[in-house]
Amino acid sequence: MLERIRIVLIGTSHPGNIGGTARAMHNMGLTDLALVAPRCEPLTADTVSRASGADTLVHNARTVDNLEDAVGDCTLVVGASARSRTLPWPMITPRELGERLPAELSSMQGRVALVFGREDSGLTNTELQRCHAHVHIPTNPDFSSLNLAAAVQVLAYECRLACLTETTDSAEPEAAPLATHEELEHYFAHLERCLIAIGFYDPAMPRQLMARLRRFTLRARPERMELNILRGILTATQRQAERHKDE
Amino acid sequence: MLERIRIVLIGTSHPGNIGGTARAMHNMGLTDLALVAPRCEPLTADTVSRASGADTLVHNARTVDNLEDAVGDCTLVVGASARSRTLPWPMITPRELGERLPAELSSMQGRVALVFGREDSGLTNTELQRCHAHVHIPTNPDFSSLNLAAAVQVLAYECRLACLTETTDSAEPEAAPLATHEELEHYFAHLERCLIAIGFYDPAMPRQLMARLRRFTLRARPERMELNILRGILTATQRQAERHKDE
Repeated sequence: MLERIRIVLIGTSHPGNIGGTARAMHNMGLTDLALVAPRCEPLTADTVSRASGADTLVHNARTVDNLEDAVGDCTLVVGASARSRTLPWPMITPRELGERLPAELSSMQGRVALVFGREDSGLTNTELQRCHAHVHIPTNPDFSSLNLAAAVQVLAYECRLACLTETTDSAEPEAAPLATHEELEHYFAHLERCLIAIGFYDPAMPRQLMARLRRFTLRARPERMELNILRGILTATQRQAERHKDE
Repeated sequence: MLERIRIVLIGTSHPGNIGGTARAMHNMGLTDLALVAPRCEPLTADTVSRASGADTLVHNARTVDNLEDAVGDCTLVVGASARSRTLPWPMITPRELGERLPAELSSMQGRVALVFGREDSGLTNTELQRCHAHVHIPTNPDFSSLNLAAAVQVLAYECRLACLTETTDSAEPEAAPLATHEELEHYFAHLERCLIAIGFYDPAMPRQLMARLRRFTLRARPERMELNILRGILTATQRQAERHKDE
């Protein structure tokens, strides 16, 4: 699905931002980059440095003269916009964008473009009005202008999440077996005997001590192996108390 | 709420990444930056250029020698981690991190640290084991290493979303104060001394024992009062071991 999402940068001024965009895209599994009328040489030492290994995306990028040529084959075009304009447009959040992607890309013809404007002035009204919707990344109102590559990073991250949750995530490591209720009860009984032996706990004056230790322990959902360690500590502690008694 | 989230950068090598981090933070409304043993001059022309007006955050940043000093007052410490380690730790997604924040920061004592490692090698195992949980940003397995400022951007974005969508939930009972990172570290040091005293732990043969006990304890998120009980038990246990030695 991710291969049918295109990042479109319009009128970019700084090669470093193109490199940073390529890195953010590759990190999130996006590959399709289009540059519209860049205002700088796209491939410089700055590009390669910021791309940090992802500069193949810049090599493979299509460079075109205008937005039309970059998004002609797309079924959904979404423009990144810092502020609402005079003419209100359908405005979605990055998360809502993600939520729309699976349906949008379910057919093989589906192709989505995310369009980012100039570092200094964003997208023009004409460009914004060529988009199906605008996406606004929520920012601090006092300091709202995101770095271009950072904005790409946030939207690419939402794209990746949306596409990942669609596929079964079998990468989860096998969880260690948790202690059973019975094992936990054996542990608590052992703990109580041990605390009595070292003179820390007096059943005649319970003061909710055992309840507090239960709550703490149960909250952690102990694994069987962890409970074995804790019981080992109790046994070692009891040994100290016993020796003392014998002498 | 956002003012009680601290971004901690450990051993950063590139001033540009500190500037990029400051910009990402300020864009998302975060203000609290701590630098742990930076491997570069934090404030250079590169910093100011990438910060793009947010360099006050770097001016105001606290620079300290080690992780302890950066997160001592925090109730939740989350380390950004690219991969799962030999000893699996509670692992959350950026979104799950966001979901935890409102409850976490509902009390005035709540303070959260998000810890980011070195550009080349991330966080050490020791540093990772000082965290309650690890957060992993889902990435392309073939190109998984995010730029430092980009990683901060994604987590700061989730923080902002979580704090924006937070509806005042006054029905929650006032939670008992959680132990701070510093109190927890004192407890672990005490636990280690005690386990050595009773002959259960040999630092020459660590076998991940302390790491396992850390993981178990941190998972439970101990309240201050619970930690006091646990330390009382340690003291009573040590007394047994000491008496035995004296006789």
